Amino acid sequence: MNILVINPNTSTAMTNTIAAAAQSVTTAKITTVQPDDGPASIEGYYDEAFAVPGVIDEINKHPDADAVVIACFDDTGLHAARCLCKVPVVGIGEAAFHMATLVCSKFAVVTTLARSVAALENNLCQYGLDKKCTQVLAADVAVLDLEDAKSAARKHISATIKTAISGGADGIVLGCAGMTNLTGELQKQHNIVVIDGLVSAVKLAEGLVAIGATTSKTAAYAQPLAKEYSGELKKFAPQK
Amino acid sequence: MNILVINPNTSTAMTNTIAAAAQSVTTAKITTVQPDDGPASIEGYYDEAFAVPGVIDEINKHPDADAVVIACFDDTGLHAARCLCKVPVVGIGEAAFHMATLVCSKFAVVTTLARSVAALENNLCQYGLDKKCTQVLAADVAVLDLEDAKSAARKHISATIKTAISGGADGIVLGCAGMTNLTGELQKQHNIVVIDGLVSAVKLAEGLVAIGATTSKTAAYAQPLAKEYSGELKKFAPQK
Amino acid sequence: MNILVINPNTSTAMTNTIAAAAQSVTTAKITTVQPDDGPASIEGYYDEAFAVPGVIDEINKHPDADAVVIACFDDTGLHAARCLCKVPVVGIGEAAFHMATLVCSKFAVVTTLARSVAALENNLCQYGLDKKCTQVLAADVAVLDLEDAKSAARKHISATIKTAISGGADGIVLGCAGMTNLTGELQKQHNIVVIDGLVSAVKLAEGLVAIGATTSKTAAYAQPLAKEYSGELKKFAPQK
Amino acid sequence: MNILVINPNTSTAMTNTIAAAAQSVTTAKITTVQPDDGPASIEGYYDEAFAVPGVIDEINKHPDADAVVIACFDDTGLHAARCLCKVPVVGIGEAAFHMATLVCSKFAVVTTLARSVAALENNLCQYGLDKKCTQVLAADVAVLDLEDAKSAARKHISATIKTAISGGADGIVLGCAGMTNLTGELQKQHNIVVIDGLVSAVKLAEGLVAIGATTSKTAAYAQPLAKEYSGELKKFAPQK
Amino acid sequence: MNILVINPNTSTAMTNTIAAAAQSVTTAKITTVQPDDGPASIEGYYDEAFAVPGVIDEINKHPDADAVVIACFDDTGLHAARCLCKVPVVGIGEAAFHMATLVCSKFAVVTTLARSVAALENNLCQYGLDKKCTQVLAADVAVLDLEDAKSAARKHISATIKTAISGGADGIVLGCAGMTNLTGELQKQHNIVVIDGLVSAVKLAEGLVAIGATTSKTAAYAQPLAKEYSGELKKFAPQK
Amino acid sequence: MNILVINPNTSTAMTNTIAAAAQSVTTAKITTVQPDDGPASIEGYYDEAFAVPGVIDEINKHPDADAVVIACFDDTGLHAARCLCKVPVVGIGEAAFHMATLVCSKFAVVTTLARSVAALENNLCQYGLDKKCTQVLAADVAVLDLEDAKSAARKHISATIKTAISGGADGIVLGCAGMTNLTGELQKQHNIVVIDGLVSAVKLAEGLVAIGATTSKTAAYAQPLAKEYSGELKKFAPQK
Repeated sequence: MNILVINPNTSTAMTNTIAAAAQSVTTAKITTVQPDDGPASIEGYYDEAFAVPGVIDEINKHPDADAVVIACFDDTGLHAARCLCKVPVVGIGEAAFHMATLVCSKFAVVTTLARSVAALENNLCQYGLDKKCTQVLAADVAVLDLEDAKSAARKHISATIKTAISGGADGIVLGCAGMTNLTGELQKQHNIVVIDGLVSAVKLAEGLVAIGATTSKTAAYAQPLAKEYSGELKKFAPQK
Repeated sequence: MNILVINPNTSTAMTNTIAAAAQSVTTAKITTVQPDDGPASIEGYYDEAFAVPGVIDEINKHPDADAVVIACFDDTGLHAARCLCKVPVVGIGEAAFHMATLVCSKFAVVTTLARSVAALENNLCQYGLDKKCTQVLAADVAVLDLEDAKSAARKHISATIKTAISGGADGIVLGCAGMTNLTGELQKQHNIVVIDGLVSAVKLAEGLVAIGATTSKTAAYAQPLAKEYSGELKKFAPQK
Repeated sequence: MNILVINPNTSTAMTNTIAAAAQSVTTAKITTVQPDDGPASIEGYYDEAFAVPGVIDEINKHPDADAVVIACFDDTGLHAARCLCKVPVVGIGEAAFHMATLVCSKFAVVTTLARSVAALENNLCQYGLDKKCTQVLAADVAVLDLEDAKSAARKHISATIKTAISGGADGIVLGCAGMTNLTGELQKQHNIVVIDGLVSAVKLAEGLVAIGATTSKTAAYAQPLAKEYSGELKKFAPQK
Repeated sequence: MNILVINPNTSTAMTNTIAAAAQSVTTAKITTVQPDDGPASIEGYYDEAFAVPGVIDEINKHPDADAVVIACFDDTGLHAARCLCKVPVVGIGEAAFHMATLVCSKFAVVTTLARSVAALENNLCQYGLDKKCTQVLAADVAVLDLEDAKSAARKHISATIKTAISGGADGIVLGCAGMTNLTGELQKQHNIVVIDGLVSAVKLAEGLVAIGATTSKTAAYAQPLAKEYSGELKKFAPQK
Repeated sequence: MNILVINPNTSTAMTNTIAAAAQSVTTAKITTVQPDDGPASIEGYYDEAFAVPGVIDEINKHPDADAVVIACFDDTGLHAARCLCKVPVVGIGEAAFHMATLVCSKFAVVTTLARSVAALENNLCQYGLDKKCTQVLAADVAVLDLEDAKSAARKHISATIKTAISGGADGIVLGCAGMTNLTGELQKQHNIVVIDGLVSAVKLAEGLVAIGATTSKTAAYAQPLAKEYSGELKKFAPQK
Repeated sequence: MNILVINPNTSTAMTNTIAAAAQSVTTAKITTVQPDDGPASIEGYYDEAFAVPGVIDEINKHPDADAVVIACFDDTGLHAARCLCKVPVVGIGEAAFHMATLVCSKFAVVTTLARSVAALENNLCQYGLDKKCTQVLAADVAVLDLEDAKSAARKHISATIKTAISGGADGIVLGCAGMTNLTGELQKQHNIVVIDGLVSAVKLAEGLVAIGATTSKTAAYAQPLAKEYSGELKKFAPQK
């Protein structure tokens, strides 16, 4: 089984971290890539929009994937990717939310910056899981700071988890692919279940392939119509 | 990895079907059991209530399970089981709902009898996934009729799927463990993604174990308090 | 008119308290019983599951009841009981929620332990009344401590009511049958309407009988199908 | 116990029907009144607005009431009445909705004209009970036609109940005070539980008095501030 | 274009403030009126009920209006007015809520007294915009105190805005027509977008006229039926 | 006042239609543009994703705009555009939804193809207006067919409006910028209020400028962080 893991951020360090974490939970063949073009890190709606073409490009370059994982917590370009693919596509944000509801009663999301909160809240609402989430909290940590072991990032995340617990959560979702390595440590430190979206998504993608599920092609995710795109974006025009 | 699959119905034929289907999607060791006591098949709230003690009994008999799957679509005794277990517990109803949201835009549930619909709607609401479900439809088929290949059951299920599709669903969830063998056939026949809860739950359970997730023990699913139970139910009193 | 009040807890002291309070608000004949078997007190999902067979047993023993009240705040076995009964069945949790919405704008629920909160929140959601409830708060008091007049229980409940009021509630629902005797005192002390579920349920049951309402038998609460139950649970198999 | 039942419509025939039905279910003293001024029958938002002053006027004329019932299905002036009263105030619309949820799984409302539907839907939403209601259906019958035994009204109501049942309801709420006399007949005819708001409200009002519940005075229903009203409406200015 | 702005409060000072503010944002002809009869200021449900007849009276007196604005934040008599009018009718509460969602992610409402909060929350729920609102907060300021430049009103409003911002709002809605003059100052002081309902409603009314939108007359807002009203309210009986 | 109207589709014919319609309702200076690059028409999630960079590009080219209108019914790139802009940004989808709620009780949306429905439903949910919408219906008409007066497009749209009305809507929202010219005709033909998003958005944008409202910059729509974008997308990297 081939699982294509796409880091929508163009940060090679983060891609390497993601590749190792993704492979650690599966015997499927993991191919981890990052777009040629796009924002180094995605912080909010604006960056997200410009990361999508690169995500789609990577899917087109890897037609042999049995499933696709989009490894940014805002599920960058998830709907567009599902239009393109018959194989399952799983975002790490949705993956974490779904997995969390299976092991706790109400989860909180701990993400990076305040500007990212609304997009995650919108996704929770769209996925129908807002009722299961007590809060989406920003730890006030930039995505790329997570790569620096000496930064105050871990301290901030830890403090935010405490706030989340006192706010009624009995499970924590880490709201950024860059936090994947902190899961075990935080779970131990706070004595609470901590869910990372990346490994969740890898297992969900693998599971969907195993049960023979494919992306629905009859409505929202119908194959894009073959037609003209103009200019530089021409290369993205859907092919029959 | 040991996954305990409990068929809350005391029908041996159904347990055998479940065992085969569960093992077909995983290399983990699957142990499939059914309660010593209880209703032969669960059709609605009343039977469900009396199936729970047997489900708990089986969990107690298998302390080496790394995860538990409850193989009845109403997720019989799910909350009670989670109180007892530190390992993940997954119901096949919730499993199917979560998996379906990853491959389609809006799913419909096709279940057995009208009396079972309300319990599934309540679960969808409780899990927060009612928004993603267009309808829960009864095919007017009894659980045990599904074991009889000559019954009209398949025809009824097929007709109900047609109704579901014309009602706007772009994915179908089969709402009964006894339908697990029909998935492939129905998917082909109706050219729509069809999700079976049993195999979904096995893969979710396996995934949760792989990512190190355990049932939260700080609130709703806190370990039951050690105390006296009276009479015959004494054997179920939680032990510290 | 005969109203059967079932205390799902097997604590005789609590049953006596319940009997007196229930009779105090009606001229109907109140029969208060407790199951032969089951948990002494219900604290969360696990105990709840094992209290249900006893509740059903008591209903079967009292076929002359004109209405049934289930006197535990999690509405133990409410759906199963409704399947069995053509007469109205009222849980004290739902009763309190409905009555509260008639005299205040937004109520808070003050219950016993943190582990009980999620079940009440699920019920509120299922009954559609979550929007009318500001919070479900645990006073950190065990059910049986309420029987001990010298315990700190009252103090904790009182402090929790203060928290609820400052959180925006203009009415308080007492979330445990064992609190029934505290209603008047707390109402006076906090100058806010305080609703007890037990007396609410007795009056609702009486009212439903008076208006000729009976439990619907066409869908969710259809009469259980006559069929085999195995083992010890055989005695609970529904009879036509 | 004195229960004041106010028919917000200025139709004497309807008031007489209401008086008889209300008294039939209680030993409390029922006083049934109608405003001096206002619309003969309330059909939608416009009439409702002009019925409120008369409702308030009647409350002021009957200071010895232990509870107030507002006998129009749109719960005319309910919030304003609660501001004025420390005793409980119950609308027949909300009463029917609450009672219905205790005996069925999902109810439909059968009301008079299409123009009345939106107000009832708004109320259901406001009371939090929209989730429990499958549909609000208009039978295309004017309120005052219900007084005429020879009109086609009953036939239309009966046909609408059939539509409601095939739409998934397992209980029917009659959405007009003028339908109170049809309850038993329709229940028998359609073999489904039928709830009338008027008798429901009388029993709820009686129940609230019995349990010592009073209207909350700390927020939404705080006593109106004593101040000047100008012109003809001066007589309605709240008195301390 | 003639826009009729009705101040449902019978306070001339407030009407003058409203007239000036309304005219300041449009070249349409603004006619600002107040009812002959009714409460000097509307604080909660009770006053609101008695302000409605006066609002309707003013609409009847001005048949040449191309659109109507109801200038009290609880949208006094909005539904009744829409029944009467074919031209668009806009309440300043709904106007502010809609405009706010176009420039911020989640708004908070800062209103006058605690007794007014529930009515605004009900409106938000009815309009479907409760999800976009973090909180409705009372500044503990009476409507008429806003006319007194020396009162502590502004200080209280400012403090309440701070609370709203720390509660997660990124936009503020001023919840009282009497606050219209404070918009610019508060926006500057708190460096956050502040929306006033009055000017919002004027622009929405103007916009609706420009695009040719008229009030729907087929269901909820159907023309009131021509019929008898009794007593003093006779003058309000709808005319064909 | 300068209002920049961006047609996210790269169809010049549609841009011309949009320009004329937009100017017809305002005296503000309308500048209508279309991206240099991107899909000729947007049909569903996939095309939408690739239209966003072009939309942002046009905003950057027109820094003197006082407000921006995004003239595609899925509100293409709305959130990203709001991050970039301090001036108000209004999508024609949201504009139509908000305007519709001011003149009818429940609206239906009539859009082009089935594949576009889910995106509109997601937007309605995100904006909080799903409760006010009865259905989103596809007329089975491609966007560019609307340009051809001889196509069957109008007939299909008309038939779909009939379906919407019989489904309970008392207002119609036209769900595609290309339908802007049909508003008056359809309104007359079906005797129901018909709302076009384009003219709605122009008036809302104009209104927001008039009342001094600007896009919130403190949370979801905070100015994008200045940082590196790689490759061809570098030109879109946000500038301080």
